[in-house]
Amino acid sequence: MRKILIVGAGKSTGVLIQYLLKKSTSENFQLIIGDLVLENAKKLAGDHPNAKAITLDIFKKEERETAVQSADIVISMLPARFHLEVAKDCLHFGKNMVTASYISEEMEQLDEQVKEKGLVFMNEIGVDPGIDHMSAMQVIDRIRDNGGKMLLFESFTGGLVAPESDTNLWNYKFTWNPRNVVVAGQGGVAKFIQEGKFKYIPYNRLFRRTEFIEVEGYGKFEVYANRNSLKYKSIYGLDDALTLYRGTIRRVGFSKAWNMFVQLGLTDDSYIMENSEDMSYRDFVNSFLPYSPTDSVELKFRHNLKIDQDDIMWDKLLELDIFNPNKKVGLKNATPAQILQKILMEKWSLAPEDKDMIVMYHKFGYELNGEKKQIDATMVNIGKDQSETAMARTVGLPVAIAALKILNGTISTPGVQLPITKEVYEPILKELAENGIVFKEEEKEYLGYNPFGEVGN
Amino acid sequence: MRKILIVGAGKSTGVLIQYLLKKSTSENFQLIIGDLVLENAKKLAGDHPNAKAITLDIFKKEERETAVQSADIVISMLPARFHLEVAKDCLHFGKNMVTASYISEEMEQLDEQVKEKGLVFMNEIGVDPGIDHMSAMQVIDRIRDNGGKMLLFESFTGGLVAPESDTNLWNYKFTWNPRNVVVAGQGGVAKFIQEGKFKYIPYNRLFRRTEFIEVEGYGKFEVYANRNSLKYKSIYGLDDALTLYRGTIRRVGFSKAWNMFVQLGLTDDSYIMENSEDMSYRDFVNSFLPYSPTDSVELKFRHNLKIDQDDIMWDKLLELDIFNPNKKVGLKNATPAQILQKILMEKWSLAPEDKDMIVMYHKFGYELNGEKKQIDATMVNIGKDQSETAMARTVGLPVAIAALKILNGTISTPGVQLPITKEVYEPILKELAENGIVFKEEEKEYLGYNPFGEVGN
Repeated sequence: MRKILIVGAGKSTGVLIQYLLKKSTSENFQLIIGDLVLENAKKLAGDHPNAKAITLDIFKKEERETAVQSADIVISMLPARFHLEVAKDCLHFGKNMVTASYISEEMEQLDEQVKEKGLVFMNEIGVDPGIDHMSAMQVIDRIRDNGGKMLLFESFTGGLVAPESDTNLWNYKFTWNPRNVVVAGQGGVAKFIQEGKFKYIPYNRLFRRTEFIEVEGYGKFEVYANRNSLKYKSIYGLDDALTLYRGTIRRVGFSKAWNMFVQLGLTDDSYIMENSEDMSYRDFVNSFLPYSPTDSVELKFRHNLKIDQDDIMWDKLLELDIFNPNKKVGLKNATPAQILQKILMEKWSLAPEDKDMIVMYHKFGYELNGEKKQIDATMVNIGKDQSETAMARTVGLPVAIAALKILNGTISTPGVQLPITKEVYEPILKELAENGIVFKEEEKEYLGYNPFGEVGN
Repeated sequence: MRKILIVGAGKSTGVLIQYLLKKSTSENFQLIIGDLVLENAKKLAGDHPNAKAITLDIFKKEERETAVQSADIVISMLPARFHLEVAKDCLHFGKNMVTASYISEEMEQLDEQVKEKGLVFMNEIGVDPGIDHMSAMQVIDRIRDNGGKMLLFESFTGGLVAPESDTNLWNYKFTWNPRNVVVAGQGGVAKFIQEGKFKYIPYNRLFRRTEFIEVEGYGKFEVYANRNSLKYKSIYGLDDALTLYRGTIRRVGFSKAWNMFVQLGLTDDSYIMENSEDMSYRDFVNSFLPYSPTDSVELKFRHNLKIDQDDIMWDKLLELDIFNPNKKVGLKNATPAQILQKILMEKWSLAPEDKDMIVMYHKFGYELNGEKKQIDATMVNIGKDQSETAMARTVGLPVAIAALKILNGTISTPGVQLPITKEVYEPILKELAENGIVFKEEEKEYLGYNPFGEVGN
């Protein structure tokens, strides 16, 4: 019997494992679920006859090698920085591998050896990166195959809360790693190209330079720029495109409010605050405001950020209870970002009955027979419950489908790769569609980069 | 005859050398001026009988060792990162040393060995750091000696243009390293303490959180916070002080205008811009503004930063000619900060007839016999011409005076140190005063930290 090894049994692997177990009998394979904590693996294995839970500490060389050696293919669901040791074993023992993470430089360096051994190391095959690559390349390749020339590519993804669970003023809850949300946009200027002009947005302007999109049936959203859109030039073969822009989707109004935290420095993760443990929430906020012998923290906040008393932004702050003098931070040696995360998690965590939502939006501008055209493609996926979230589904399904297709030899071109070739994306997108992950395409008037539809006089 | 070796004959060493040469005959010593470029050294040596110019490449071990070995004391006027090799030689050959730079960790580590050999390695003895340390400690020690308890210490310094040469709308010209001005405030949050409360200002708010000071005869100035004021707690022995705040002085209005560059990202030094060489000034500015098929760079700038058409900030921008479509940047692989520096140097360089000005302002709050008091001390120094600038004078004189006093044994306590003990600051401040560098003290009402004098109702 063939064996698929899954390394790392986090919460997000439920959908992935369910998909594979369903196929395990007809496809004749066993699933080995390895985790540092055996209980985690056992929970996910359940009592399925084709599932086996094992303790697996990837830092124990022998344990790791034994597990990899016994498998036919390895899926690593570990945090990205831990893939490499597993990858080296896969290379050594001649096993294929699948991850949902960005290809690191170290992973990239294995490419030649992986090719020599005829192995497939498939990466970036979750939702973003993953479904975005596949759905974008499918349309880009079709446009090119028809003789079209790409002019513009914009692509936006957001992990959000579903409309029926959207119950706070921020229209946002944490549906994935909260830390990534708090530090989003830090660590480098946002770079992209619009109508042939390179554009740069520093962190402190990022959440004030949003654009709007509308998704039929779901209303209006806003988008802020991702860090480096330019790298998709070469990946997608878009060297001649005039516009390349990737972004993150939020509900309208989120970014303007989030910007208050950015401006005051509450999202900074680069230094530790004095006495962080004993600070109240109010002390925390006050640390970023000028001292005054008389004025309230509230008035100083309003004055510093020029917030009128009837501005909805103010209600958003009150909803978070950040001016509370009685709630203690309770975190030792914490950075501002860590403290802010704690405060937000109290208000933005999903309730048991809450559902999440993934929204993806691509714009493809192109020229065909002298005519400029545009296709917009949108995908919305709503979670079922807390174990089958839209996030777990849209990450887990493509990983699972890819793993099985590699195991079966349907996907076989060797190398360290991401899913941008037809061989890969066609069968996977087809099966994703059968599982309800579908893109809706629409022809639009091509305006170039001109999101507000403005015309000079 | 005794020998003083000066390593590095930059423009700022003129005053230093003139002072020492004047004393050389009566004090019986020779001055050896070493520089990578012999011409530089020769220019400063002139034809003075006690001055000798030599070629000195500090990266050539033998050249360096020979020079250090022959001297009785070494003054290093090199950029701070180059002091260490010279310092190691001084330690090895048992020579005293003087620098105007902050004590680096590596320099600090030599302390024990320096003490063992009974040597004096005096650092931070320019203007800031330097005169600020000495003038502050003199007052702080006096307050303590009288039985007072320090409550507040604020200290501000600015290198500015003299009123008679203040001819642009920014009321600013480069009187020192322009690069330091462009990247000022980057590389870490500003930390300080006000009335016992720790306060933090991120870079993007730094130039909007200014405070005002007034210097009699010179009018109003503004101050933005320096990076880390907290380290002066231990250096000055101010562990119980409620307020510790250090800042940089500019003319009022500079920071608000400078903040435009910070907000848009023009001061960023962390990445290289695409096609920087062929960009026009206008292209450069436009890179930080949204693309528009119709709107002008000017209107986008105004709209993004909410600048009214009659705002003086706008005139400040026009004065810099940054919207010029014909002027080319002409710098290969340049960062935004490098390009901005180039643009500013065209407008903010000192003209041959221009004079510079150093302003220093200390506030000392203390309690004596149950009464709260405050002393403000100010120093203003105006340059004579381009070779005897206030900057060269206030850096060069304390260095020269200290070197001679160490040579003569008046300053003799060994160790890697900065000028905060009476043994050091008393004789040096006295001689600085004889040379016109004088602090004016004034008693003020103690308000605690309350710069705007506000009272609650």
